[in-house]
Amino acid sequence: MIRRRASRPLQIGGVPIGGGAPVVVQSMTNTDTRDVEATLGQIRRLHECGCQIARVAVPDIKAARALPSIKNESPIPVVADIHFDYRLALAAIEGGVDGLRLNPGNIRRREQVAAVVKEARDRSVPIRIGVNAGSLPPGNEDKPTPQRMVEAALGHIRILEDLDFDLIKVSLKAFDVPTTVEAYRLMAERVSYPFHLGITEAGTPRTGSIRSAVGLGILLAEGLGDTIRVSLTGDPCDEISVAYEILKALGLRDKGLTLISCPSCGRTEIDLIGLAHRVEEKLLTLDRPIKVAVMGCVVNGPGEAREADIGIAGGRGKGILFRKGEVIRTMPEAELLSALLTEVDALVAAGERQEAVTGLGES
Amino acid sequence: MIRRRASRPLQIGGVPIGGGAPVVVQSMTNTDTRDVEATLGQIRRLHECGCQIARVAVPDIKAARALPSIKNESPIPVVADIHFDYRLALAAIEGGVDGLRLNPGNIRRREQVAAVVKEARDRSVPIRIGVNAGSLPPGNEDKPTPQRMVEAALGHIRILEDLDFDLIKVSLKAFDVPTTVEAYRLMAERVSYPFHLGITEAGTPRTGSIRSAVGLGILLAEGLGDTIRVSLTGDPCDEISVAYEILKALGLRDKGLTLISCPSCGRTEIDLIGLAHRVEEKLLTLDRPIKVAVMGCVVNGPGEAREADIGIAGGRGKGILFRKGEVIRTMPEAELLSALLTEVDALVAAGERQEAVTGLGES
Repeated sequence: MIRRRASRPLQIGGVPIGGGAPVVVQSMTNTDTRDVEATLGQIRRLHECGCQIARVAVPDIKAARALPSIKNESPIPVVADIHFDYRLALAAIEGGVDGLRLNPGNIRRREQVAAVVKEARDRSVPIRIGVNAGSLPPGNEDKPTPQRMVEAALGHIRILEDLDFDLIKVSLKAFDVPTTVEAYRLMAERVSYPFHLGITEAGTPRTGSIRSAVGLGILLAEGLGDTIRVSLTGDPCDEISVAYEILKALGLRDKGLTLISCPSCGRTEIDLIGLAHRVEEKLLTLDRPIKVAVMGCVVNGPGEAREADIGIAGGRGKGILFRKGEVIRTMPEAELLSALLTEVDALVAAGERQEAVTGLGES
Repeated sequence: MIRRRASRPLQIGGVPIGGGAPVVVQSMTNTDTRDVEATLGQIRRLHECGCQIARVAVPDIKAARALPSIKNESPIPVVADIHFDYRLALAAIEGGVDGLRLNPGNIRRREQVAAVVKEARDRSVPIRIGVNAGSLPPGNEDKPTPQRMVEAALGHIRILEDLDFDLIKVSLKAFDVPTTVEAYRLMAERVSYPFHLGITEAGTPRTGSIRSAVGLGILLAEGLGDTIRVSLTGDPCDEISVAYEILKALGLRDKGLTLISCPSCGRTEIDLIGLAHRVEEKLLTLDRPIKVAVMGCVVNGPGEAREADIGIAGGRGKGILFRKGEVIRTMPEAELLSALLTEVDALVAAGERQEAVTGLGES
């Protein structure tokens, strides 16, 4: 149902971005990049959570020197986040990173930018222009913020284009959701480079995930966005699960458990909340896409959760197991959870057999 | 920035809905409605969390008979949720409820509907038509679900309009976000009645809040929606805080703490995550709107969080307190939290004094 913007394709270490590729989920490490073991440990954990690209901060030359060791062992592409210092950018490219986040307008001398761009081009290392509403160049304060953000980004883009470099991604982040949305909309009219989406400083998982879901949801529903990062003040793995929930809600990605569960109401006669949480907990690490329903009403449950691959509903001590809206078995309430988990295991195994036969893996 | 749809105004027990009124936040009790004390207890707690209207399920006549006692003591308007049985609707209106959720097409005989509508009109009790994708009438299975939902709702609406009743709200809920969004968009072209928004069976707070934020966020950003309910399998108070976060993200409501905090990164040198969580915990019950920033970088923090009423940033044992982007004090890191909370108290007190002078309270 979503018609995606036709953006120019590029690759970050083999991961396709833009040009109709599935929306890519990214995060950023919050370890000290100079600490190779800690950083690699976090990247490995991010990878396990489903993160496809990891960005690392490179604040000084020691951090830059840690990049080859990180890159060599990393299970996913690594992007170096660099401010101002072109020597760090050169060292990062030399160190084998798969992408840079760098605003060339912040590098003092044109020949320094040219040196970075030459190396990036030689090694096909894309550069993300990342403009944040909070750190716009002075001047033009009378113009609306989204317009100032776009103009700042276009300035950086022009520097790269003048050097014949077009492996460009663009991000335009703000804390304010309407500002962010407007900035990307304006930018979509100006360039065809792929967009990296994010809401900056969104807050803790409790509130920042909601703010990110609103902002990224609006943009993704309009077809904008080729790669996303949910910025949360918390465990980077939280960012990944929120990112996938946003994408799953819009049918843009499919991964692991999608839980359909009704809010219990005055009609509910089983411990629905406890049941839903136990199901979620048991199936949290599932990777294969599956829709599971936990409903409080035997009469309406199967119909209302018709899209579920498998579901349970209960009331007054009795429960049912249903598949795609059809009741397959009745049982005592106490057996519902284990019956459901058995069925999920069977569906997952069947999917894997199917895959082995067709030779098609998940992307 | 959001241009809201011009919907017809109505009132639920004094709370204005539609016609440009602020988006109203609702929830539904999950207690047994026949248990007056439990239900009232939950409504009171919902009210304290910021819920403006409470819906209660009325599955049988005993529940309907509990309504007068609930309604008499409830601090917020009460809506009765009724299926099929017109006698329950009559008893609910008789019992003083402020609104009904009722699909007249599901009541067998026309004169029974007419009896309900007569009482509702006499007492100015609005009726919400609530169509769910999971329980659509049979037939038309070849048409797209959003269209079927709209047609079902229009059928119910027509019954009320034929009886000269127009105190109508409409909801069109589905688990699938694109389906829900499309249904409301189609409906907006057909009627001007106010919309109650929701995503059904969205799941637990962990995932359902994201799904709701995406779905309601898209619709609200388009100006659709006069009242919302976030349906979660969990504590109804969770629904309220998620609802306000969605509205705050779009600038549609202002309430309590808005926390601006950066994801910590490899450059961060203070315990940002811990600090952000402690600030959030301390200020969670705040009602007066205030924007607070917790940033990991003394250099960029104040500028990036310029919109914050008050903020802190730290690194290498030292920290700063800033207001609207301007640094007001430097201090040891250990003093940051208490200095921030003192400033928040002062801002809240100043706001209250201001209010006392102007005589303007918050709506």
